[in-house]
Amino acid sequence: MRINKDQIEEQNKENLSSHRDRFNFLGDTLSKDDKDVNTIIQKLEKFQVAIPSWALGAGGTRFGRFGFQGEPSTLEQKIDDVGLLHKLTQTAGAISLHIPWDVPKDYAAIKELANSHDIVFDAVNSNTFQDQKDAAESYKYGSLSNTSKGSREQAIAHNIEVIKIGDKLGSKSLTVWLADGANFPGQSNFQTALNHTQDSLKDIYKALPNDWKLFIEYKPYEPNFYSTVIQDWGTSFMLANECGEKAFSLVDLGHHLPNTNIEQIVSTLMLKGKLGGFHFNDSKYGDDDLTVGSVKPYALFLIFNALVYGMENNPQNPYPAWMIDASHNVKDPLEDLIQSLEAIQEAYAKALLVDQKLLTEAQLNHDVVRCQEILQDAYRTDVRPLLEKARLNSGGVISPINAYRSLTVRKELIKERGANSVATGL
Amino acid sequence: MRINKDQIEEQNKENLSSHRDRFNFLGDTLSKDDKDVNTIIQKLEKFQVAIPSWALGAGGTRFGRFGFQGEPSTLEQKIDDVGLLHKLTQTAGAISLHIPWDVPKDYAAIKELANSHDIVFDAVNSNTFQDQKDAAESYKYGSLSNTSKGSREQAIAHNIEVIKIGDKLGSKSLTVWLADGANFPGQSNFQTALNHTQDSLKDIYKALPNDWKLFIEYKPYEPNFYSTVIQDWGTSFMLANECGEKAFSLVDLGHHLPNTNIEQIVSTLMLKGKLGGFHFNDSKYGDDDLTVGSVKPYALFLIFNALVYGMENNPQNPYPAWMIDASHNVKDPLEDLIQSLEAIQEAYAKALLVDQKLLTEAQLNHDVVRCQEILQDAYRTDVRPLLEKARLNSGGVISPINAYRSLTVRKELIKERGANSVATGL
Amino acid sequence: MRINKDQIEEQNKENLSSHRDRFNFLGDTLSKDDKDVNTIIQKLEKFQVAIPSWALGAGGTRFGRFGFQGEPSTLEQKIDDVGLLHKLTQTAGAISLHIPWDVPKDYAAIKELANSHDIVFDAVNSNTFQDQKDAAESYKYGSLSNTSKGSREQAIAHNIEVIKIGDKLGSKSLTVWLADGANFPGQSNFQTALNHTQDSLKDIYKALPNDWKLFIEYKPYEPNFYSTVIQDWGTSFMLANECGEKAFSLVDLGHHLPNTNIEQIVSTLMLKGKLGGFHFNDSKYGDDDLTVGSVKPYALFLIFNALVYGMENNPQNPYPAWMIDASHNVKDPLEDLIQSLEAIQEAYAKALLVDQKLLTEAQLNHDVVRCQEILQDAYRTDVRPLLEKARLNSGGVISPINAYRSLTVRKELIKERGANSVATGL
Amino acid sequence: MRINKDQIEEQNKENLSSHRDRFNFLGDTLSKDDKDVNTIIQKLEKFQVAIPSWALGAGGTRFGRFGFQGEPSTLEQKIDDVGLLHKLTQTAGAISLHIPWDVPKDYAAIKELANSHDIVFDAVNSNTFQDQKDAAESYKYGSLSNTSKGSREQAIAHNIEVIKIGDKLGSKSLTVWLADGANFPGQSNFQTALNHTQDSLKDIYKALPNDWKLFIEYKPYEPNFYSTVIQDWGTSFMLANECGEKAFSLVDLGHHLPNTNIEQIVSTLMLKGKLGGFHFNDSKYGDDDLTVGSVKPYALFLIFNALVYGMENNPQNPYPAWMIDASHNVKDPLEDLIQSLEAIQEAYAKALLVDQKLLTEAQLNHDVVRCQEILQDAYRTDVRPLLEKARLNSGGVISPINAYRSLTVRKELIKERGANSVATGL
Repeated sequence: MRINKDQIEEQNKENLSSHRDRFNFLGDTLSKDDKDVNTIIQKLEKFQVAIPSWALGAGGTRFGRFGFQGEPSTLEQKIDDVGLLHKLTQTAGAISLHIPWDVPKDYAAIKELANSHDIVFDAVNSNTFQDQKDAAESYKYGSLSNTSKGSREQAIAHNIEVIKIGDKLGSKSLTVWLADGANFPGQSNFQTALNHTQDSLKDIYKALPNDWKLFIEYKPYEPNFYSTVIQDWGTSFMLANECGEKAFSLVDLGHHLPNTNIEQIVSTLMLKGKLGGFHFNDSKYGDDDLTVGSVKPYALFLIFNALVYGMENNPQNPYPAWMIDASHNVKDPLEDLIQSLEAIQEAYAKALLVDQKLLTEAQLNHDVVRCQEILQDAYRTDVRPLLEKARLNSGGVISPINAYRSLTVRKELIKERGANSVATGL
Repeated sequence: MRINKDQIEEQNKENLSSHRDRFNFLGDTLSKDDKDVNTIIQKLEKFQVAIPSWALGAGGTRFGRFGFQGEPSTLEQKIDDVGLLHKLTQTAGAISLHIPWDVPKDYAAIKELANSHDIVFDAVNSNTFQDQKDAAESYKYGSLSNTSKGSREQAIAHNIEVIKIGDKLGSKSLTVWLADGANFPGQSNFQTALNHTQDSLKDIYKALPNDWKLFIEYKPYEPNFYSTVIQDWGTSFMLANECGEKAFSLVDLGHHLPNTNIEQIVSTLMLKGKLGGFHFNDSKYGDDDLTVGSVKPYALFLIFNALVYGMENNPQNPYPAWMIDASHNVKDPLEDLIQSLEAIQEAYAKALLVDQKLLTEAQLNHDVVRCQEILQDAYRTDVRPLLEKARLNSGGVISPINAYRSLTVRKELIKERGANSVATGL
Repeated sequence: MRINKDQIEEQNKENLSSHRDRFNFLGDTLSKDDKDVNTIIQKLEKFQVAIPSWALGAGGTRFGRFGFQGEPSTLEQKIDDVGLLHKLTQTAGAISLHIPWDVPKDYAAIKELANSHDIVFDAVNSNTFQDQKDAAESYKYGSLSNTSKGSREQAIAHNIEVIKIGDKLGSKSLTVWLADGANFPGQSNFQTALNHTQDSLKDIYKALPNDWKLFIEYKPYEPNFYSTVIQDWGTSFMLANECGEKAFSLVDLGHHLPNTNIEQIVSTLMLKGKLGGFHFNDSKYGDDDLTVGSVKPYALFLIFNALVYGMENNPQNPYPAWMIDASHNVKDPLEDLIQSLEAIQEAYAKALLVDQKLLTEAQLNHDVVRCQEILQDAYRTDVRPLLEKARLNSGGVISPINAYRSLTVRKELIKERGANSVATGL
Repeated sequence: MRINKDQIEEQNKENLSSHRDRFNFLGDTLSKDDKDVNTIIQKLEKFQVAIPSWALGAGGTRFGRFGFQGEPSTLEQKIDDVGLLHKLTQTAGAISLHIPWDVPKDYAAIKELANSHDIVFDAVNSNTFQDQKDAAESYKYGSLSNTSKGSREQAIAHNIEVIKIGDKLGSKSLTVWLADGANFPGQSNFQTALNHTQDSLKDIYKALPNDWKLFIEYKPYEPNFYSTVIQDWGTSFMLANECGEKAFSLVDLGHHLPNTNIEQIVSTLMLKGKLGGFHFNDSKYGDDDLTVGSVKPYALFLIFNALVYGMENNPQNPYPAWMIDASHNVKDPLEDLIQSLEAIQEAYAKALLVDQKLLTEAQLNHDVVRCQEILQDAYRTDVRPLLEKARLNSGGVISPINAYRSLTVRKELIKERGANSVATGL
């Protein structure tokens, strides 16, 4: 199924007048307050978030998985799903592949298909947390950190293979998420594991094309429940420094201990020029992988406030790679992603509304009350008309969820793919 | 210092036109969406939050306290401070006293003073977590739970004394917050401590006038760091049930373990008719006692959503007693309280916007995406014009923080009280 | 594979002399300190822990599962595995079945098999967190709490069916663990869900034979990540009270928010006569289901201290049903269980060493230092010789892990069952 | 009060025979197991822990403080208290001063006094979290990170002054604990605060004598409840690297978010040669500052296992400075410290018992069960006879708590100092 321009226009027709009223009123209000509405909308239009190929089917937990109908079962169908998302939202212009789940058979055809959807290939992801059927070595006791040389070498070779696949598709970065760690005290030697990891990452780094980046993800626990080799930003940052200037840390919102101040981590990494990638999701307890903004939207706003500040003030930091990394256990994956994209754009728009000059002034005056007022003034603003405008400008719909339902997308996909199609992945 | 009607009008003059535009536009938008704006505003006007007498001076931590100038040093001055708050916001129409810090000398005069500010006396609070200078017994090892009969009896008698003081002022409820617990495993016998607490509470309950309520607060830790006798809602609920129908649980937002779902606790207590009181504040790590809404405004909204549901659907539950319980370590206490009041009204207004009928329908349809849309549609709405309107209707100012500053209230208070006045309390 | 008496004796031969020396020295030391060593050993001998049928194969996480060889693939093989455990340790004299994974075909044969291993059938467990292949209704949006009557009725009927199966085997209790909850704010109405759950539990309760107990488990999160219907002991306790005197709470060590004081919960439940069942495991982050005692052995000791106190002082509480509920992701499941059993017996033995009379005395004297000394004196004692003695007395081996390896049990099981046998379950 | 040699011998007389029996039996058992008992005892004898001058009086919380009698009110009395501790335990041969609470008047006399107790001066601590009476600038909004140059310069000058004081006493290190941070989002700019801190630390570093070390402490929260400038080991490590080779991280056990794997942090820092100092205490919820080993003794053991490994395998890391940093709210401070010292020595002794060679072998074999057995075999050993032996060898008592009580030390101190003496400090 493809959504065409006429359908988009049809969807927008009935909301257009209401949208214009709300946009005009908000625009006037903001302009009186010296906000540059046009610049904000342009930034919103440019902001594109990659969709991971594994998030297009139903997710699950260790207690099982409740299936969802019409899931994409091939790489082509996954790209089509992202195409649908992008068509409606105009903010999902990239896909992030996971190898070995998404190895293309015909590279040219795949690239052409993506191109036809106006989609690029973002960071590629390796998988060394599961044993593949034909694997010579096991990752049960680790991959890049394994005391067994065979497992390490297999994992290094796999990562290099992933780079090659990504390179053929136009990707420019490799994300390494390492599940390596231990379930029990004593199971592994922390220093040995760290040294092996460092050496393995350096080997992968050597294979990196010149215009590529290496993203090193961190996570405190799960699937290991006593320790994880790359447990926090400090470890990731240290490893990235040791690899070289093309290596960066990757922040996944769900990968932190309770109560962590994530926006401070973001600020530190950007100050040091080492924030490479960013995975969006939300959570209440652990790495819950819930819809972005569904639980802690203010925290998301504060993080975006740090990101906006960094993007404007830290030329030493590259433009980060954005991706949603969520699990869709009880919602239609595409609807879930639409909600996530909306929440991301909302937080971004609100952060763009923060008057950084006044904020700095209030900070210098130790006027804590005013600092809070400035942040909350931006946050309390209902920015939905700005998001709608940015989507309209780019050819998307005013209300993606409503359009998705009105166009009965899922029904069409089930018709095309059958009720029992299952996405590869977890 | 008192703020008079003319000053209020003067403050509102320049914002009035802008307020009207924003209110009218929002009102129209909401009305189109079938929201009853007038009813919402009436509810906002009626919603009054008590100010605790101990929150009008600078707070501190165990590492010290940075003073603030112009603090109220008498009960009269504390009431005056609440009067100022109420005059501006029209939502702080009550004060909650703490005994022995606030024992009136002349009851009639104190009542008259409060009355002149349009302020009533909310729940009275006892103090059995500190030893008073002339005390015969110590609370070092507990009060109502102490194995020493002398300490228990002194604590019971103190609570009864607090009821008597409150009764003379027109209070209708006693809040018991018990710091009792242990710093080390083995220090106390859990069952003995719980039995003593239950018996002591029953003794206090017996002294309760017929039209009074007893609020039993819970808290997992601090100032004891291994265990607390009333550590969670379950214990508080159990004790309240054992005391009788005039005994209720009191929820303080900061008194929960990391990641607790507080709105679910609120719902359960209201279903069972046992939510008596509510203390507002915000926190990131523990009982941080930060400005309401400064860290987790969406959680506050979700809690208000549960409260609104309960107030509308649970006749078995009495109307709860609302109070702010925060500590003002780096802000002017009155400005801090203004921000808290604003955040409370905002969350309440947004919760009132939730379309409960559509929500129930979506829940019955297992339409999780729609459920989230309904909540977030309400939350994303910029309700500030509604709050302004409610304040205007009641004779308050459109923008309390700005008015407070424009009227140089703190400067006046320092002039009256001196720079070094210190509030009694922690 | 079965281990016979001769093999046991053979295993003990070489350790016997060393054991005797250590036991005699410890016994003398403890006796001088007025400890009744014989009574302690008798209690250790009697203490039996049920093994859940689903913990005999390799566990996994949502990121996958690394298989283990020689897993039991039938109910008979599972019973045989528990038989092996019990033969070596003499502390695993019960199995806890999970329906529908363990429905017997021939009840008489199954009972005879269990009997031949000296094993009884402990609590039976229902499963309403997964959809079975032939199920008419889905549990995707809940079971006992589902707004859909069909799902609730199916779940109630299933639980009643589980009781019937258990009854035929001699079980005397049903454990209900409910995964029901919500992944997102708004997804469900807390009060509706709680009311449905209460009604459903009452329906199940009605079907309970007179000499049976109903255990209501609680858990704060997972597999739902916003809310869980029975989220804490308070909810479980409330539901148990509403069901009746045969209903009890069940505590699983991993089912608590960070930093919860579990021993206090245990004490409260026993004081109120409502601690019915207990699931052992250990964890660092969430419901990690690690080997008992592998992460927080002192917390386990403190919990046992509360349990011992309750068993001796709370006749109002029934003798609790003990079970291990762990997941064996990187260890041989049988070895893992041996380590868990050892840790349980160790914590129990140490708790039995606590001088309760002196402790009470120190508590009454507010001698906190002495309280800690008394607990730590017991905890610091190396009680392994007592455990060995208890096993020897009952016909088990001195060192179960060493015997298991020396007898090459796993190798034998692989020979019998093949390398690729897979246990039913998660 | 001073304890003399005769009193020590008198105290040991009655326990000596029992101690010898237990020591001999344990020694034999360990020797059979190829443990070098003498080397372990020598290491225990050498292990000395500094006592902070501020931990000799009663501690408190923000809710108040219950006093303790006979507290030391002068620097001389504090040194005397540490002298008593050291005399009994022979493991408290150092004191750590806090400036401005402990500025000596007569340096020669103070050094002589300390020398007479066999006590050296460990790291000196600066205080920039409180305003001193005569201070020109305030630290209310930060010290080394303050946007106000005046506050930063005052804080830098203070630290340099502390170095000078320490230098005159023979200290060789400065510990910087920075309370700087923010209570509210927006209050401070993370990057500005970090840059200021870095620059300020470099200024202090420049003033460091050649043979000195700078310890940079980290802490996630308290007394600031939104953010702390040096919030974790990663930030501390980064700052230490930027300062230079004499700068190191300092780990305080209570300064971590819930569930942090501290032993892994210790291992990483030692691998990188950057673990400079270590503060012992215990906690259940936050920075509870409880008696060492009173809540999580196994975690303490695991941390010591990492420390022992580092001390033996990481020549790149200096020998760390050890200190107890606890708060004594309900115990006699000296008894509390005796319990802490005992717990530290116990954990150290058990870690020394770990067979590192076998552990490495098991790790290489991925024999997770064996890894756990090796750690737990060491941990389960009752090492108290080793600690007694080490104390005896050094001239201390077998049982410090009993001796302290038998000698009625506190009673003597009250006689000397009066009941109402109050220690300077928090």
